[in-house]
Amino acid sequence: MNNELPSPFWKWQFASDNVAPMCPEAMEAMNQANADWSPSYGDDPWTQRAKQRIQDFFETDCSIYFVFSGSAANAMTLSHYCQPYHAVICSPTGHVVTDEASGPEFFIGGGKLIHVDGPHGKVDPEGIEPVFVRGHDIHSPKPRVLSVTQTTEMGGVYTPEELNRLGAIARRRDLVFHMDGARFFNAVEALGVAPRAITWEVGVDALSLGATKNGGPLCEAIVFFNQEGLEEMEWRRKMGGQLASKQRYLSAPFHALMQPQVWSRNARHANTCARQLVDGLAEIEGITLRFPVEANAVFIRMPEPLAQGLWDKGWHFYPFSEVDAYRLMCSWNTDTDAIQAFLADAQELAGRVC
Amino acid sequence: MNNELPSPFWKWQFASDNVAPMCPEAMEAMNQANADWSPSYGDDPWTQRAKQRIQDFFETDCSIYFVFSGSAANAMTLSHYCQPYHAVICSPTGHVVTDEASGPEFFIGGGKLIHVDGPHGKVDPEGIEPVFVRGHDIHSPKPRVLSVTQTTEMGGVYTPEELNRLGAIARRRDLVFHMDGARFFNAVEALGVAPRAITWEVGVDALSLGATKNGGPLCEAIVFFNQEGLEEMEWRRKMGGQLASKQRYLSAPFHALMQPQVWSRNARHANTCARQLVDGLAEIEGITLRFPVEANAVFIRMPEPLAQGLWDKGWHFYPFSEVDAYRLMCSWNTDTDAIQAFLADAQELAGRVC
Amino acid sequence: MNNELPSPFWKWQFASDNVAPMCPEAMEAMNQANADWSPSYGDDPWTQRAKQRIQDFFETDCSIYFVFSGSAANAMTLSHYCQPYHAVICSPTGHVVTDEASGPEFFIGGGKLIHVDGPHGKVDPEGIEPVFVRGHDIHSPKPRVLSVTQTTEMGGVYTPEELNRLGAIARRRDLVFHMDGARFFNAVEALGVAPRAITWEVGVDALSLGATKNGGPLCEAIVFFNQEGLEEMEWRRKMGGQLASKQRYLSAPFHALMQPQVWSRNARHANTCARQLVDGLAEIEGITLRFPVEANAVFIRMPEPLAQGLWDKGWHFYPFSEVDAYRLMCSWNTDTDAIQAFLADAQELAGRVC
Amino acid sequence: MNNELPSPFWKWQFASDNVAPMCPEAMEAMNQANADWSPSYGDDPWTQRAKQRIQDFFETDCSIYFVFSGSAANAMTLSHYCQPYHAVICSPTGHVVTDEASGPEFFIGGGKLIHVDGPHGKVDPEGIEPVFVRGHDIHSPKPRVLSVTQTTEMGGVYTPEELNRLGAIARRRDLVFHMDGARFFNAVEALGVAPRAITWEVGVDALSLGATKNGGPLCEAIVFFNQEGLEEMEWRRKMGGQLASKQRYLSAPFHALMQPQVWSRNARHANTCARQLVDGLAEIEGITLRFPVEANAVFIRMPEPLAQGLWDKGWHFYPFSEVDAYRLMCSWNTDTDAIQAFLADAQELAGRVC
Repeated sequence: MNNELPSPFWKWQFASDNVAPMCPEAMEAMNQANADWSPSYGDDPWTQRAKQRIQDFFETDCSIYFVFSGSAANAMTLSHYCQPYHAVICSPTGHVVTDEASGPEFFIGGGKLIHVDGPHGKVDPEGIEPVFVRGHDIHSPKPRVLSVTQTTEMGGVYTPEELNRLGAIARRRDLVFHMDGARFFNAVEALGVAPRAITWEVGVDALSLGATKNGGPLCEAIVFFNQEGLEEMEWRRKMGGQLASKQRYLSAPFHALMQPQVWSRNARHANTCARQLVDGLAEIEGITLRFPVEANAVFIRMPEPLAQGLWDKGWHFYPFSEVDAYRLMCSWNTDTDAIQAFLADAQELAGRVC
Repeated sequence: MNNELPSPFWKWQFASDNVAPMCPEAMEAMNQANADWSPSYGDDPWTQRAKQRIQDFFETDCSIYFVFSGSAANAMTLSHYCQPYHAVICSPTGHVVTDEASGPEFFIGGGKLIHVDGPHGKVDPEGIEPVFVRGHDIHSPKPRVLSVTQTTEMGGVYTPEELNRLGAIARRRDLVFHMDGARFFNAVEALGVAPRAITWEVGVDALSLGATKNGGPLCEAIVFFNQEGLEEMEWRRKMGGQLASKQRYLSAPFHALMQPQVWSRNARHANTCARQLVDGLAEIEGITLRFPVEANAVFIRMPEPLAQGLWDKGWHFYPFSEVDAYRLMCSWNTDTDAIQAFLADAQELAGRVC
Repeated sequence: MNNELPSPFWKWQFASDNVAPMCPEAMEAMNQANADWSPSYGDDPWTQRAKQRIQDFFETDCSIYFVFSGSAANAMTLSHYCQPYHAVICSPTGHVVTDEASGPEFFIGGGKLIHVDGPHGKVDPEGIEPVFVRGHDIHSPKPRVLSVTQTTEMGGVYTPEELNRLGAIARRRDLVFHMDGARFFNAVEALGVAPRAITWEVGVDALSLGATKNGGPLCEAIVFFNQEGLEEMEWRRKMGGQLASKQRYLSAPFHALMQPQVWSRNARHANTCARQLVDGLAEIEGITLRFPVEANAVFIRMPEPLAQGLWDKGWHFYPFSEVDAYRLMCSWNTDTDAIQAFLADAQELAGRVC
Repeated sequence: MNNELPSPFWKWQFASDNVAPMCPEAMEAMNQANADWSPSYGDDPWTQRAKQRIQDFFETDCSIYFVFSGSAANAMTLSHYCQPYHAVICSPTGHVVTDEASGPEFFIGGGKLIHVDGPHGKVDPEGIEPVFVRGHDIHSPKPRVLSVTQTTEMGGVYTPEELNRLGAIARRRDLVFHMDGARFFNAVEALGVAPRAITWEVGVDALSLGATKNGGPLCEAIVFFNQEGLEEMEWRRKMGGQLASKQRYLSAPFHALMQPQVWSRNARHANTCARQLVDGLAEIEGITLRFPVEANAVFIRMPEPLAQGLWDKGWHFYPFSEVDAYRLMCSWNTDTDAIQAFLADAQELAGRVC
C-alpha cells in the first residue's frame, strides 16, 4: 500500500458504498449509547426514538423492525409474506436475485423469484401480466409479491409515476408491493420528493430501509406501511437470527442518521460525486456510459486494458455482469480529490491503451 | 357426456399421457401382489425384483428408490444433492420449473433454478458457461446440478451426442448431471438406442424414471447411477413422505412394466400415434406445427376459434405456454379411432373458421 | 420360508397392520377404475364420490385432500398451520415424533414438537398449560397446534369426554386441534360412537384419516372440518409431492372402503383379533400386558429368550421402545388360525424358557 | 426512573449480561475502525487480526466466521452439519431449545433437538445411549450432533473431565461435538484452564464463541476446530443473512476483546460479582440457592412477594422456568455498589414478607 496516500484504503472508495465508514453523527451516537446499561432486545430508548424518527420521515404510522443487513431485511420481509409455493416477481438484476445467495428462497423455505426485465434495472410493468398467463394453475408457483429496488442495482431511480403504475398492477393482481431500499435515501435525494410519495402513497406495503450504505453502521430497518398480520413478526425475526440483544448499537446510529440534515447531506454528497465522476469519465476516450447516472452509481464500459491499468494503479472497483462493464460507487464520504485522481489516471491510461 | 362414446372419458385421451389407465400387465401385477401379506417399506419380493429388472434394463449396478410421483422423484433427487445456496441449471420450460409448484426449491429448502434456454425445450450447452460468468462469487447461488428432461416438455428428444456434450460440461464444471425421465421410455423407443447410451454412458448421475406416463400406476423410480453418498437417502425419502408402507403396490406393476415387450410396446404405440396425429394435422388448413414430433407429444398452433370448436365437441386438450399454442399427448392406449375422429372434427371446423 | 405355510408371509401378519393386502372391495374398485381413461389430478368421478362418502361418514361438510401416506397427511396438515417458529404439542410416543423422520419439521421448515406425556400414549391435558408457563415469550417457539393420535401409538383409544376436554383447552389457548387418525376406524369401532362424536363435535379441526391400515391401498385423506384458509392447500399438496396425477387409484379404493359394511367389518375384525390374541397371551407364564388392549394393538412384555424363540420359529413382530417390550398388530385380515398357532408356539416356548 | 440513580438503567444490571455496554477497549476499537474506508465482507485487516488472536487464544489453527448473534452462530453451525432428518442431542434447558425460537430447526430446515437432561443444565452422558435404543431406524431422526453449552444456561461449568467423556461418546457414536460458548470466557476464567483444554483437546468440533456477553458489541465467532467440509460455509453465512458488509464493526471490537488482559478481566469481574451476590443472598431468610454458582449466573428461589417487592423498588431480573425461581446475572461492569444496594433491599423486604 502506498504510504503517501491519505489513508490505507483511499483507493478502495469507488468499490462500493459499503467501504465507507459511519458518518460522524452515527459514530457519536454509538459512543453515547455505550455509556450505560440498557434494556436489551429493543426495549431501549434509542430504538423507540429511532422508530419515531422513521415514522416522522414517512409522515405516517408504520411498524419498524431493525435487522443486521439488507439481505436479511429482504429475506425476513419476503418470508413473512410468502409460503414456499409462492413466487416473487422482480428484476433479473435485483439484489434478491444476484447478491443474496438465495437468501430469499432460503428464508421462504422454497419459493421462486420470477424475473421481469426492464430498462435500467427496473421491472417493466408490461412484463407482469404475461407471468400470470404462463402459469399452469396449481402446478406453477403462485405470484405473491412484486419486489422492486429503489434505486435499482443499475443505478436507476423509479419515478413516483412509475411506482404508481406498478402499485396499481400489484393491487389489481393481489400482489404485495415490496421495495428494497438499500439506497432509498439516494433516491429521495435524487427525486426531490417526500419519502411518502415513493412508498405508501404509491402502494408500497413493506420497505427495506438501508442505513449501511448511507453512513450507518450494520443496520437496516424493515418498515411495514401495511401493518396487517404482523402479530408474529417478532418470532420470525428472532428465529431468523436477526434480533439484536444489544439493539441500541443498531438503533442509536440509525436514529442519528434519520436527522434530515444528516441523511440528506450524506445522500446528496454521494449523488453529486457520482455526477462529477461521470462527467469526467464522459470526456475520456474509450469509456462509454452503460446507464444514465441518476443517483450514486456509475456504470461504464471500457476496454479491459484500461480497467487493468487502473487496478494496477491501486484503484478498486468491480466488473459488473457483462464483459468490459464496470461499476463505480460513490458514498457519503467520497473524497473529491479521489475523483480527480481517478479521472487523471484514467485519462492518462486511456491515451496509452485506447 | 355423450352416451354413444366408447367410454365416458374417450375424448379426454389427448389431454395428457396420465389420463390413460394402467396397462393390463401392470394391473395384473397389482392384483397378484394383493394376494397375500407382505413385508412393508420395500422389504417385499416385488420391490427386489423390480430393482433387478431396472438394473438389467440399464445393464449396470445402480441404486433405486421408488416414490409416488415424478415431481417427488425430481425433488428428492435435487434435494439430495443441493444445499439451499445451490443452483440447478435447467431449461425454462422444464417440468421442475413450470409444473412442480416450486417443489424442488421446497425440498431443497431454498435453492434456485437457473434457466438456460435452447431449441425444442432443451438446455443449450452454449448457455451454461455464461451462468458462471454472471455469478458474484459467494453472493450468488452456486451452480450444483445440471438437469435435463428426456423427452423434453416440448416433445424433443436429446440425442446421445447432445447428452454427451452436456455430460462433459457437467464434469468440467463439477455439476451433478440429473435427468428427469418422466417420458424416458418414449425417448429410448424414439432413438432406438440402449438405455445406457443416454444415461450413465454419457455421465448421467441420477435419473427420475417414470412409469406413470407409460402405462404404470402412481410410481416413479429414482435411479442413481452414481451411488456415492447415498447412505442416508432412505431417511430423506421417509422424511419427504415418499416411503410407501405397502410398497409392493408401486413395485409390482413397475416390475411388470419393465418387461421389454411391455415398456417398449407401450412407448412405441404412443410415439406412433403422435406421428399419425401430426401427419393428419399437417393437412389441415390453419394448423401449424410448433415443434417437430420426436416422441409422443404434438405441439401445434391454431386459431382460437378452432380450438374452441374442438373443445365444444367434447375434446380435452390444453393450451400451452403461449397464445394459440396447444399440446396433444398420445399414450400407450391411444385409440386410433380417436385420432381419426379428432382429425375429422378438426378438418370440418377448420373449413368453417379458418 | 416354510413351504407348508398357507402363504409365504403368513407369519408376518402380526408385524404391522400395513403388511395386510387391500380388502377385496378396495382391490375390486381399483380394477374398475382402471377400465378407462380418466381426468387426472382429482378431476375424476371416483375422487368426487369418495369425498362425498367421507362427508356422509362424518355427517358434515368438510374439505378433503387425498395423499399417499399417513406421514404425508400429518406433515401436509401441520405445515398448513405452522410457521417455522411454531410448536406442536403432542405425546412423546406420537407417530409424528417417533416414526416420521422429522417429516413434520421438514414440511414446516423448522418448528418444534413439544412433548406432553400421559397414560397409554395419550396427551395428558394437565400437561398442556405448563408448556405456556415454561415459554420465554418470543424467544421460545409459539405453540400453535395440539396433535393427538386416535387410536394412540400404544393402542389406547381417547374417549369422547377426553377429546372434549382437550378440545376445550385447544380453543382456550387458541391451538389448532389436529388428529392423526391412522387407525381412526379402529377407534370408531372400539367406541361404538358416531365418527362426528370424536372429531368435529369435540373441536377437531383437521384429521388424517387412514385407509392404508384398514384394508386400503396407499392412501390417506386429510379431512378439514375447519375449512378456513384452505384457498392455497392445493398448491401445498402439489409442492409437497402429494398430488397424484392418476388420483383415481387412491380415491376409488378409498371410496369402496368407505362403505359402512366395509370399514366397520375390517376394523371390527382387527379389534376382535387383538382381543382374542391378548386373552390367549394372558394365560402364558412370563408374558405380561404392557397396556390394556382397546383396539387392534397388543403390547406385551416378555423375556428376551421367549421373543427370540418366536422369531426363530418364523414369526415377525417388533420390539417397541423399551427393553423386553413388544408390539403385535392385528388387521382386517388377521387369520384366526395364525393367532392359535402363535399362542401355541408361545405357550410351548414359555414352558421351556420362563 | 429515580433521578438520583447513578444512571437511568442502573437497576437493570442483573437482568442479563447483555444489558451491559461494550467495555472501553471494544468501544475504542470500534472508533478506530471507523477512521477510514475499508474493504468489505471481511477482507479488512481487523477481521484478519481478530482471527489470528482467536487462533492464538486456542493455540491451534482453526476456521473462524464472525456472525451477528449467538443464536445465529448456533443455527449456522448446526445447519452446516445437519440435514433436515438429523437430530441434535442437547439439554432441555439449552439455549438452542428454549431461547432461539426454533432457529436451529429453521436453519436446518427441519431437524429435531432431542433432550438429554442432567444436573445443573448439563447433558448427562448416561442419557445419550438410550436415544439410540429408542430410535426406529430410518423412521426416526438420525442423531448427528451432540451440543453442550459452556457455561450452561443454569450457570454450571463443565469440567475438562466431563467434556472429555462426552467427547469420547460423540466420537464413538459418530456425532459432531458442538459447544455453545455464549459465556465461554466465564467458563475459562472459572476453571483456570487453557481454552484448548475444554475445546479441541476434548474433541469439540465447533464452538460458538460469544463476545456480546463479555463486553463485546453484537458479535459472535463460529470457531471450527475441525476444518473439514467448510468449502461452502461462506455461501451458507451469506445466505443466512449473517455476512456483514462492514464486518470491521464486528471484528475490530472482537479483536480488542481477545487481548488476554481484557477478556479475562471482564469474565473474572462477572464471576467475582456473582460470588459476592450469592454470598450475600445466602444470608437472607426466605432465599435459597437453586444451583451452585460456578460462573456469573445466580439462580435463586424466593417467595413471590419478595420478588415483587424487589421489582417494585425498580430492580429488573427474570423469573426462570419454574414457579418462584429467578435468575440474576453479573457482567463485566457489574457495579459492586449495586450488589450492596440489591442485598440491602432484599434484606429489608425479607424481614417484612418472609
